[in-house]
Amino acid sequence: MYLKPIKPIKMSNPLHNELKKEFQLERLILFSDAVFAIAITLLVIEIKIPDVEHPTDSTLLYALHHLVPKFVGFIISFILIGLYWTIHHRMFGFVTAYDKRLLILNLVFLFFIVLMPFSNGFYGEYAGTMVAHDLKTPLSFYVLNFCGVGFTNYLMWRHISNPKKKLTTPPIDNVTLKLAKLRSVLVPSIFLLMLPVAFLTNVGTAVYVPLLIPAILRLVRRRIKNKYKIATSN
Amino acid sequence: MYLKPIKPIKMSNPLHNELKKEFQLERLILFSDAVFAIAITLLVIEIKIPDVEHPTDSTLLYALHHLVPKFVGFIISFILIGLYWTIHHRMFGFVTAYDKRLLILNLVFLFFIVLMPFSNGFYGEYAGTMVAHDLKTPLSFYVLNFCGVGFTNYLMWRHISNPKKKLTTPPIDNVTLKLAKLRSVLVPSIFLLMLPVAFLTNVGTAVYVPLLIPAILRLVRRRIKNKYKIATSN
Amino acid sequence: MYLKPIKPIKMSNPLHNELKKEFQLERLILFSDAVFAIAITLLVIEIKIPDVEHPTDSTLLYALHHLVPKFVGFIISFILIGLYWTIHHRMFGFVTAYDKRLLILNLVFLFFIVLMPFSNGFYGEYAGTMVAHDLKTPLSFYVLNFCGVGFTNYLMWRHISNPKKKLTTPPIDNVTLKLAKLRSVLVPSIFLLMLPVAFLTNVGTAVYVPLLIPAILRLVRRRIKNKYKIATSN
Amino acid sequence: MYLKPIKPIKMSNPLHNELKKEFQLERLILFSDAVFAIAITLLVIEIKIPDVEHPTDSTLLYALHHLVPKFVGFIISFILIGLYWTIHHRMFGFVTAYDKRLLILNLVFLFFIVLMPFSNGFYGEYAGTMVAHDLKTPLSFYVLNFCGVGFTNYLMWRHISNPKKKLTTPPIDNVTLKLAKLRSVLVPSIFLLMLPVAFLTNVGTAVYVPLLIPAILRLVRRRIKNKYKIATSN
Repeated sequence: MYLKPIKPIKMSNPLHNELKKEFQLERLILFSDAVFAIAITLLVIEIKIPDVEHPTDSTLLYALHHLVPKFVGFIISFILIGLYWTIHHRMFGFVTAYDKRLLILNLVFLFFIVLMPFSNGFYGEYAGTMVAHDLKTPLSFYVLNFCGVGFTNYLMWRHISNPKKKLTTPPIDNVTLKLAKLRSVLVPSIFLLMLPVAFLTNVGTAVYVPLLIPAILRLVRRRIKNKYKIATSN
Repeated sequence: MYLKPIKPIKMSNPLHNELKKEFQLERLILFSDAVFAIAITLLVIEIKIPDVEHPTDSTLLYALHHLVPKFVGFIISFILIGLYWTIHHRMFGFVTAYDKRLLILNLVFLFFIVLMPFSNGFYGEYAGTMVAHDLKTPLSFYVLNFCGVGFTNYLMWRHISNPKKKLTTPPIDNVTLKLAKLRSVLVPSIFLLMLPVAFLTNVGTAVYVPLLIPAILRLVRRRIKNKYKIATSN
Repeated sequence: MYLKPIKPIKMSNPLHNELKKEFQLERLILFSDAVFAIAITLLVIEIKIPDVEHPTDSTLLYALHHLVPKFVGFIISFILIGLYWTIHHRMFGFVTAYDKRLLILNLVFLFFIVLMPFSNGFYGEYAGTMVAHDLKTPLSFYVLNFCGVGFTNYLMWRHISNPKKKLTTPPIDNVTLKLAKLRSVLVPSIFLLMLPVAFLTNVGTAVYVPLLIPAILRLVRRRIKNKYKIATSN
Repeated sequence: MYLKPIKPIKMSNPLHNELKKEFQLERLILFSDAVFAIAITLLVIEIKIPDVEHPTDSTLLYALHHLVPKFVGFIISFILIGLYWTIHHRMFGFVTAYDKRLLILNLVFLFFIVLMPFSNGFYGEYAGTMVAHDLKTPLSFYVLNFCGVGFTNYLMWRHISNPKKKLTTPPIDNVTLKLAKLRSVLVPSIFLLMLPVAFLTNVGTAVYVPLLIPAILRLVRRRIKNKYKIATSN
């Protein structure tokens, strides 16, 4: 932002256009960062401060104890939004140009990020009784919102890596891209799997589905690397 | 932002002043982005998490069902603010200098953006019964707020394209500018049309008025392009 | 206590050092912008959406009617925060270096900006009955908060223009500086005048005091310009 | 799981690569700033505007009087977050590269910053009766949150100064680093000391523990400087 072109810019200059275009891309990125930052901070707003009439340590601890499911929801959502921020950060480390479609995909992506504090709050509100009463609604809402984030992210990877669009110069290398795309489609898919599991069995079983993610990702990574190693050694 | 100078800047240097001026413009833009980002994220705050006493899937779905008009309002407002962000983004892609008037116009523009979460919440609160009870107040408030955004945006286009002010070097080409100005005045005008329609007929009819926008914009675009084609071919 | 000055580190590359220092200054500025943006957007949160049991246009208009004093308060606060943003923007257009004291003064300044949504909400809550009941408390709170903004701003002007600190290179020219300093001390002083007027007469009279500002500022500006014209012509 | 290290991509233009990497670092910093800015501004949201039925100056002052402990909490939290912002600002003044671990540590650090408005609100809610009723819960929660901020900060100092990671070029000089690390571990440690004091004696005594900080820091600073003076003179 402080880092400037060499000579006073003549405006008709193609260099200036180049710089301006780069600032436009940065603006897209920093706007996204602001939305991420606000969404991640608003998560905490849904944890209402306990209002105890006769406050003693035991009544306050009891009140805090009731907030535990909300805190768990808050921490999970913080991790997920934080994770997608790092993915967005990494993805735009490759991007060197933008088009209208990327602008729109990014806004759709941010839409689902902005919705997260609501889904998180809704989930957290009923997390305490969710398993006991087998409540599928808050879980489904949360999972669908998260899948919106994940699948839009996949569409963004696909779009920026489309060689016809020339949005990444130099192009992202093949292994990195394959991994990024597969991962971005696998993670929300596994989350989505929670819904049939919840409806066929129960919510108490479904919440364990995401534990499959690390194992599946490791498997996929190994296969891709092997495939490419073979390809290169041939 | 990451474009380096080659030699250290001497501060008494006119180049430095130039650079500083550019950073001042960027600051104006990034401040606007932050306001946009917060306004777009606050939209979701007005959707209160349903508080159901005896939560079962059917009571929760019923509660969510009641939130549908709010979600619709949220999505419309997200699209509108997102749209105006992309317009702001595009407009300032042309701007290379600023003056006090642009600063003030931009603040007025942001004022109406900041008001959007309220108008959206007010609209969403009564959206469910709006058509049935023919409630004109929430619709009017929303439309007037949006027109504030739209018409201030038009004033900004007019101001930055004023050749005497030298705010865009090189100047924006004629077809692009004509289109941007016409569009920026047409869209809020059509929205404004909802008010006489609502008062002369009813709210249920007025909500269909914005559907005219795409057709009218296409018409206008074709006419301008034809006119300029003729002008150039002559 | 964390901020004890530590001697400047030698960097193998003096250019890099210079650039890093400039980015550090920009970071201070963009952080301030974010705080401004959030404070200005939070103003609207205190205007609660009217909750009318049997909504008709007349009951809704009546409810909106009751919000008028809050809207007035919102608009005034938006203008004041917007104004101080433009002043901050202009001030840091001169600043080329920072020190620990500027960091702290800026944080104190932001403290009063952050407090504005509360003061504004408190004022707006009672603005409707303030004159009728001669309520001095909300007005005093608001005025004192605003004076905190204004006088800290004056201290910042004084600090950055201190030639010993070398925070502005080249130094700000004399007329600009004199005007900026006088204005920054006069505006909160006139606001402060509202308190004795409110206590000696009543709140209904005190609210007219700020109307003196434009006249006094014009007077001061003319005198300073004349003085300097004479000085230069001699 | 998304962050698996991927081999550095070769770019046709090494300079561009360098610049992009620097922008990526700036993005990390500006995202953190946005989170800081929002957290520091949200503090004020927990101070609810007094809702007095028959407002007179005496009832309003009485209502404000009840808010004093909340204001004290707000001011303390503002100072602490402001302080850690300046520390973050200073720390990243040294950082010239980042790795996955720094990204994660920074997110953990921001997690505790984001939690501060809740802890502050919880503390403020019961601050008025905390000493009288010897309530240990709000104090403990606040202290533990603050220690999360402080100790993560220490881990960040340790990580960026690890010469193997090459995150600061040139490396931070020894005295500066020693001081920063010691300070960053001492301050939360002294805060943590409040807990045994509160449980062994009472909350009314524990709140005085932080007053030890300036004296201890001064002592430590003197010892380190002496040690290094001796080392250099040898």
